[in-house]
Amino acid sequence: MTTSEHAAAAAADHPVAVRTSLDADTGIGRVVLDNPAQRNALSTAVMRAVTAGLSSFAADPDVRVVVITATGPVFSAGHDLSEMIDRTVEDERVVFDACTEMMETVQRIPQPVIASVPGPAVAAGCQLVAACDLAVASSTAVFGTPGVRIGLFCSTPMVAVTRAVGRKRAMQMLLTGETIDAHTAADWGLINTVVDPDELDAATAALAAKISESSPLTLRIGKEAFYRQIDLPQHEAYELMGETMATNAVTCDAQEGMSAFLAKRTPQWTGR
Amino acid sequence: MTTSEHAAAAAADHPVAVRTSLDADTGIGRVVLDNPAQRNALSTAVMRAVTAGLSSFAADPDVRVVVITATGPVFSAGHDLSEMIDRTVEDERVVFDACTEMMETVQRIPQPVIASVPGPAVAAGCQLVAACDLAVASSTAVFGTPGVRIGLFCSTPMVAVTRAVGRKRAMQMLLTGETIDAHTAADWGLINTVVDPDELDAATAALAAKISESSPLTLRIGKEAFYRQIDLPQHEAYELMGETMATNAVTCDAQEGMSAFLAKRTPQWTGR
Amino acid sequence: MTTSEHAAAAAADHPVAVRTSLDADTGIGRVVLDNPAQRNALSTAVMRAVTAGLSSFAADPDVRVVVITATGPVFSAGHDLSEMIDRTVEDERVVFDACTEMMETVQRIPQPVIASVPGPAVAAGCQLVAACDLAVASSTAVFGTPGVRIGLFCSTPMVAVTRAVGRKRAMQMLLTGETIDAHTAADWGLINTVVDPDELDAATAALAAKISESSPLTLRIGKEAFYRQIDLPQHEAYELMGETMATNAVTCDAQEGMSAFLAKRTPQWTGR
Repeated sequence: MTTSEHAAAAAADHPVAVRTSLDADTGIGRVVLDNPAQRNALSTAVMRAVTAGLSSFAADPDVRVVVITATGPVFSAGHDLSEMIDRTVEDERVVFDACTEMMETVQRIPQPVIASVPGPAVAAGCQLVAACDLAVASSTAVFGTPGVRIGLFCSTPMVAVTRAVGRKRAMQMLLTGETIDAHTAADWGLINTVVDPDELDAATAALAAKISESSPLTLRIGKEAFYRQIDLPQHEAYELMGETMATNAVTCDAQEGMSAFLAKRTPQWTGR
Repeated sequence: MTTSEHAAAAAADHPVAVRTSLDADTGIGRVVLDNPAQRNALSTAVMRAVTAGLSSFAADPDVRVVVITATGPVFSAGHDLSEMIDRTVEDERVVFDACTEMMETVQRIPQPVIASVPGPAVAAGCQLVAACDLAVASSTAVFGTPGVRIGLFCSTPMVAVTRAVGRKRAMQMLLTGETIDAHTAADWGLINTVVDPDELDAATAALAAKISESSPLTLRIGKEAFYRQIDLPQHEAYELMGETMATNAVTCDAQEGMSAFLAKRTPQWTGR
Repeated sequence: MTTSEHAAAAAADHPVAVRTSLDADTGIGRVVLDNPAQRNALSTAVMRAVTAGLSSFAADPDVRVVVITATGPVFSAGHDLSEMIDRTVEDERVVFDACTEMMETVQRIPQPVIASVPGPAVAAGCQLVAACDLAVASSTAVFGTPGVRIGLFCSTPMVAVTRAVGRKRAMQMLLTGETIDAHTAADWGLINTVVDPDELDAATAALAAKISESSPLTLRIGKEAFYRQIDLPQHEAYELMGETMATNAVTCDAQEGMSAFLAKRTPQWTGR
């Protein structure tokens, strides 16, 4: 296993740590929130480090799947509130710009991104889970948007959460600030799978391995297409996706994949 | 408890009654459909009275949460059909304009609105539940859009219902006209909670009390933001919500709330 | 029972068969994928035959409800891959244009369309189920979008599937290519009902019969309205649907239906 690690610069009073690593055997790139003492708060520095890590993976053809996870019992408690007190509105904009940039980068990179959630994910932490393409969580995880309780409505988390769980359930989370447990989150479509805590790593790895069997070129085409069509009226979506499939179909990997399927052999991917 | 009551003027042959009241202790404003003899039919007069009641609450800073509920075993059977027979299309437009105005007012007022549903809610009654921010229902409630059975497809209820329960389930309700029970409605996301009939008032009050602990200013910012972003493409939604959170963060109540949270004390809200 | 049958022209090496029939007693028009030896592959010829069958039903006032089903243990395995190997991008476009035309025709015809699914429905087969207004499936059915496994991401199926099951679940199906069972599909809103295999025909017929009790005119107004409003921002949807209901209300069948309801008699539909 070849591992390259990056530790983000940490201010003296706000130690931050985001570790990134690549497992050369599996092609899994990992972004690890690694500041459990501060419940993996998403300070601006942390969010920028996550964005940088994701962007670095985006350009690396050896990265087949990305996993975002965290050290310690909490996935992330959300923003670092100490960065948001006694600030100007311009200062606040910097925080939320960095946050949105991180969330959109998750969806913009070509590789599928799996949130692997060991524990509570709240506010921007919940948003990060909602923004990932897929999410596997420990049964000890809970999810919430409690900003309303401290005077700061979770308006940006709301963008991702409403699009995942629907109106009434999003409103319940947003207006009460109460968390939902992992099974409820799976039932509502916020996450995909709930597993026992000691099975989280294995379940995440198995999901990543399953996806990694497919052509990276095809996964890239598909993920980009997913987010291009999701907000379009259906007819426009069909027009765009029909063209996407037609051009996908003539790629080397589609030709190889279809031929291999018909010949009942394992395909050999060459596309990038 | 200070109570102000309003009884809408009732035509001789179509008695209507919508009662509104404010509990000064809890800050709960109530709009009560109070015409059980006619299954709380939503005549034009009733819909206008509901809209007027909601608008009155909107301007009242003492109203923290609004509850829409009903007297008798039925929440609402929908429109008053006697108003829709032997009429011109202009007459019909008046009815549906009043209906849409009521539904949009529910979402436009700054306070969260909870539907507290003691029994069947069908057609425009079902739409009213779907339009509320939150909904708690008795296990005796059922929900349906049966207009198709009487030649008048539930096209306006459809707007709210499809956005709550999704395509296939909305189509099932709309094309068959059959009702779903309260547990199914909760499973599909049309309502939030199902309780025993004798627990409906307490469950509604508990939910309202929970929400009322939060800053009215923050709730207003959040509810308005919710409906502004819900129909936007995701990137536009993030742009708008990033700005919403930045300006929310510098309000007195956000500053107080974050400071109180960090100091582990109870926040004191002053914002309006 | 009057039955008119159409057998699509079949190339020597790619026999295709789509049968259409109308049961004059029930008003149920059936489109049957009838090429079980090739797992009801959706070749271009098959898709065009389905579209032609649907279009023919659209213009026939005796057709009250349409059922799309299949012969054999598989509903449909999706596209005919042999049509997509060693082709130009123009050739591929022809395939996907025919596919989208079929999917949109399902939603464009005035009659409700029920998918009756006896077994696996994958790729474009899954999309066809998702595109139908309603779907009843045998417990032996499974649903999936496995194109990613053969290099051809299910981008057009994605349009229908994401709009039915939401983001996280659609991503799971699309990125892993794994199927979900019928009960999961019902839980996620991809289909309406799961029944024992030997009850599929009866359950489908019962659903069609229930719908057929309603006015064809009202069903046509409602189905067209459903797809017109589904992708609109809510306010625009309300404006359009308010007008739709006002004009629906003055039709003969709405007047008859409301009058019959108030008089507790069975309505007599005359509208077309």
